[in-house]
Order: sequence, then structure tokens, then C-alpha cells
Amino acid sequence: MGFREHLQDVVRSVDGAVACSLMGMDGIEVDTHLTDELGLDLKSLLVEFSTLFHGARAAAADHEAGAVSELSIQTERLLTVARLVSSEYFMVAALRPDGNFGKARYMLRITAPKLAAEL
Amino acid sequence: MGFREHLQDVVRSVDGAVACSLMGMDGIEVDTHLTDELGLDLKSLLVEFSTLFHGARAAAADHEAGAVSELSIQTERLLTVARLVSSEYFMVAALRPDGNFGKARYMLRITAPKLAAEL
Repeated sequence: MGFREHLQDVVRSVDGAVACSLMGMDGIEVDTHLTDELGLDLKSLLVEFSTLFHGARAAAADHEAGAVSELSIQTERLLTVARLVSSEYFMVAALRPDGNFGKARYMLRITAPKLAAEL
Repeated sequence: MGFREHLQDVVRSVDGAVACSLMGMDGIEVDTHLTDELGLDLKSLLVEFSTLFHGARAAAADHEAGAVSELSIQTERLLTVARLVSSEYFMVAALRPDGNFGKARYMLRITAPKLAAEL
């Protein structure tokens, strides 16, 4: 499977998932599968959240808390879960607020190594 | 119960929890219950993570994703879960990486309104 198929697989497998992206740590998107059900500008929001992933990494490193493996943000309209793929890339899934958060975490955990193997 | 008792209650109720704080959105701590088992400078790390909460709020607001209710960060040595208490305050629990994440989210969800009522 290519990147896109892995990202589609996450969206298909998680109740309430509307998008899944592979992103560079610099906020540049590598590939995205997007169902666009929310009426939000999801892509630019995910770019902004990559800044937060970056910030979390810096804060954790400064305080010897080790590498950041996962970051999740719940808002009124959106639940996002991001997971480290490699030192330069992470993947992020966006769900409706009532989406299956536990399943999203699980799917990212098993999919991240598959993406890493293709980078 | 006062703030401290609520924070203690979270730490006591969640397997693997080592600290729970009530923080201002400006990163200033209101109160903390800390068991200090990790050998990390947890308090200053939590202050840094409050900057991330702030950043997530700004990003979500800019993109009409609504208020940020929860933020979680998993690192190699620490799992933190933060939850909005009011527009100016949030609470954050720190767990060992193998701590009970689901229980922490649940405890913050039921404890945040109790803290809000005392602010």
C-alpha cells in the first residue's frame, strides 16, 4: 500500500474520522485523505497543529521528558490525534467530537510504522 | 473540598498518576498535588505545556473549530492530559507512560466542573 491507502484505511476504520494526513514536522503536508464532512478548513488547521507538535517536542526535550510520541486536541467541533512517524514526520487523524478516540489512537499506533517503512 | 483535595483525588484515583495541577492560562500555577516519582522537573514542564494549551486555543479559534476542551501529550517518560476548567484556567494531570489514560480523561472531565464552581 502507498501512503494514501494507509491514510484511507485509518479514516475507514475509525468511527467519526473525517481526515488523516502524513505531515512533515515543518507543517508541510506529504499526503492527506480527506472526507471533508465538517465544513472546516481542516488542512490549514492541521498545519497549525503541527506547530504545536513541534512546540511539545521542544518542551519535552528541554525537560528531559523524552520524545513526544502522541498529541491529541479536543475542541467543540473536532478531535485530532497526532502520532510521531519518524523524527521528521508525523501523522494526524481528525474526528468528529463524538468519534472513536481510542480506536483512532490504536490505528495511528499500528499505521505509523507502516508509513515509516515507506518514507 | 478545596482545590488541593480535588487534585489529590485525581492522583489517587488514576493508576500511574504522579501529579495534578490547576493552572492559569498564563502558565501560573494555582495549586498542585505532586507525588514526584518521576525525577523530572514536572512543574516547569507543566508551565511549558500551558503555552501549548494557549497555542491550541488560538489555532482552533482562528479556524472556527470552537473552544479547546482537552489536550494530551504522550512522551517517552510522561503522559499529560489537560482539560479546560474555565476561560482562564485549566487543570492538568501527569501520569507515568503506562498510566491509565482513559481514567485520567474521565477524572478530569468530572473534576473540572467542581474546580470551576470554586473559582
